[in-house]
Amino acid sequence: MKVHYLEDFEAGQRFEGASRIVIERDRIKSFAAEFDPQLFHLDERAAGDSIFGGLAASGWHTAAVTMRLLVDSDLKPAGGIIGLGFEESRWPRPVRPGDELRVQSEVLEVRASKSRPDQGLIRVRFTTLNQNNEAVQVSVGTLIVRSRPTK
Amino acid sequence: MKVHYLEDFEAGQRFEGASRIVIERDRIKSFAAEFDPQLFHLDERAAGDSIFGGLAASGWHTAAVTMRLLVDSDLKPAGGIIGLGFEESRWPRPVRPGDELRVQSEVLEVRASKSRPDQGLIRVRFTTLNQNNEAVQVSVGTLIVRSRPTK
Repeated sequence: MKVHYLEDFEAGQRFEGASRIVIERDRIKSFAAEFDPQLFHLDERAAGDSIFGGLAASGWHTAAVTMRLLVDSDLKPAGGIIGLGFEESRWPRPVRPGDELRVQSEVLEVRASKSRPDQGLIRVRFTTLNQNNEAVQVSVGTLIVRSRPTK
Repeated sequence: MKVHYLEDFEAGQRFEGASRIVIERDRIKSFAAEFDPQLFHLDERAAGDSIFGGLAASGWHTAAVTMRLLVDSDLKPAGGIIGLGFEESRWPRPVRPGDELRVQSEVLEVRASKSRPDQGLIRVRFTTLNQNNEAVQVSVGTLIVRSRPTK
């Protein structure tokens, strides 16, 4: 498995996720029961009457699945995928039972650290797509990445 | 349970979460095994050698728990807590096994919709605090809120 040091990244690079995750109806409900117990994530009938027009996964379920897809993807920063934070994150459309999700990453910017030569930051856009190639989550985050060790 | 329509919100309002959630060591590991299987979320020894200096919850675990705290809080927008997206989100410090989390919300802005008189948007800062009143997650999100029905 190839890991990427700060020096290996440049703006414009894209990384594909090889894996796919199907969002099962039961997991939508059990995730929501623990973390987001609102009716439109728990009950088909109530969801039909809601703004979602049918059962929809919690956005945090989508976010968590996106993280799993990223860990399984070709994006392998040295030291791991460690997010400092996000400057933007949105859910353009709901995730439905049976949707199959995958992730794409695009490096937007690479910054060395002035105070710490052993690490730097990369800004990355993460796009989570469903089986129809429709974006269900788009976010821009900043990751901490180790510099290549000097010997 | 009192729900809040768009007209009930104004900038500066604060809502406290009454509930507290303790982040258990086993749940840190099981959440990570499903959604963020990186060693610093799974294994104490590997975590000690990582940037976290010890086992730390996935940021997405903290985000999901924050959502649960919000659903249980006094912030009750009519129609539910429905996030359009976030313009900022960061994790200023790690969440450790045994940490007890709570959430505070502050309304930053209220906007009527030009195209849809039946709903509007509120911008809210959500701060997740640990038992030492240290912020472990700070985010600013936009929620969709129904207008008060006219009869």
